[in-house]
Amino acid sequence: MAEELNVLRTWSSPWGLRVVYALKMKGLEYETILEDLKNKSDLLLEHNPVYKKIPVLVHNGKPICESLVILEYIDDTWKQCPLLPQDPYERAMARFWAKFGDDKLLPSIRSGFYTRGKEQEEGVATAIGNLKFIEKLLKGKKFFGGDTIGYLDLAFGWMANVISIMEEIAEIKLIDAETFPLISAWINNFSTHPMIKDLWPPRDRMIEKYKAIREPYLRKEA
Amino acid sequence: MAEELNVLRTWSSPWGLRVVYALKMKGLEYETILEDLKNKSDLLLEHNPVYKKIPVLVHNGKPICESLVILEYIDDTWKQCPLLPQDPYERAMARFWAKFGDDKLLPSIRSGFYTRGKEQEEGVATAIGNLKFIEKLLKGKKFFGGDTIGYLDLAFGWMANVISIMEEIAEIKLIDAETFPLISAWINNFSTHPMIKDLWPPRDRMIEKYKAIREPYLRKEA
Repeated sequence: MAEELNVLRTWSSPWGLRVVYALKMKGLEYETILEDLKNKSDLLLEHNPVYKKIPVLVHNGKPICESLVILEYIDDTWKQCPLLPQDPYERAMARFWAKFGDDKLLPSIRSGFYTRGKEQEEGVATAIGNLKFIEKLLKGKKFFGGDTIGYLDLAFGWMANVISIMEEIAEIKLIDAETFPLISAWINNFSTHPMIKDLWPPRDRMIEKYKAIREPYLRKEA
Repeated sequence: MAEELNVLRTWSSPWGLRVVYALKMKGLEYETILEDLKNKSDLLLEHNPVYKKIPVLVHNGKPICESLVILEYIDDTWKQCPLLPQDPYERAMARFWAKFGDDKLLPSIRSGFYTRGKEQEEGVATAIGNLKFIEKLLKGKKFFGGDTIGYLDLAFGWMANVISIMEEIAEIKLIDAETFPLISAWINNFSTHPMIKDLWPPRDRMIEKYKAIREPYLRKEA
């Protein structure tokens, strides 16, 4: 069956990258449709009327939204190279930690990035506390998925994409190699993986982008 | 194999009910361990060190946290009476809307419940806008799962549990039968279903409980 797979995303979004990495891992051909979030396309508004956000995977004309939902859809639809573990308990753990990443860890990291002074210190401390849970998950493993990249590696891809960018811009330290040797090694293993590295957003553009999105927050504070 | 299934929950929590309803639908025997959230048990703190929250399903000694993750675990582990649809696209839709319920709809309903005046009006208006998406999902269906209760019915169980309680206490109207005939019928079908009704939290206790949790918010405002 001829599959038509389109991914609505931006060049930089880690949530969009989750989707294209998953499709690449499954060996599927797809087209990227780059969105300008300041001027959203009719296609995006039509396919994601609830959130009006990227990424959207459009499979033979049918839209699927929310990146973790999309990863499950991809894994349910194409059985080769499974993303989620097969064991129900391991699957539950992968889902639990992916959700923790989005709901808890990321907001704590953002609160260290978008602030200054005492608020920033507190954000960084909370983020480091959250990262300690993640460090433990990697004990004895190269990837969260074990020997190979899986669902949880893709779910945590944003850590590799953005943390060092945020650290550089906000002059904070979240992941130092002594406290987090396993996460540090994972970031290196993940970002240099043949399936992953080609689509890696260029560091200079990321720095520029994240400086620009941080700036209004600091102005509000001043 | 002898299965040991324990559910840490409270008598009232809709998230705890998701889990016990799912176990009942699968025909599984389980024990409820009632938690007092003002004085959390060592068992809860040990089994959910990340969130320290109920519900927790403990299966043969292994804890699983986060109610939607638990539903997936139950469905992955026991194949009888599937909760999620079999079709990958339908599965994705069920997951998408369950997440929407927790991330968007519930906060909008809360913002109509915990406030007064203009803020309350805005909260109610947003909630009604969100409920319109849900109404459409029920077109031609008795349950979100079709003819029978499924994952999305359990995920949306909180609507049936708490909306009318909140409406009565805060003197607001969220679901009127004219605007939302399908949700209104669903609430009735769901809450009177033989699998569901026996564990339904008593209305008078729910009123008392929600009055008590609303009160500090209003004091803060005054």
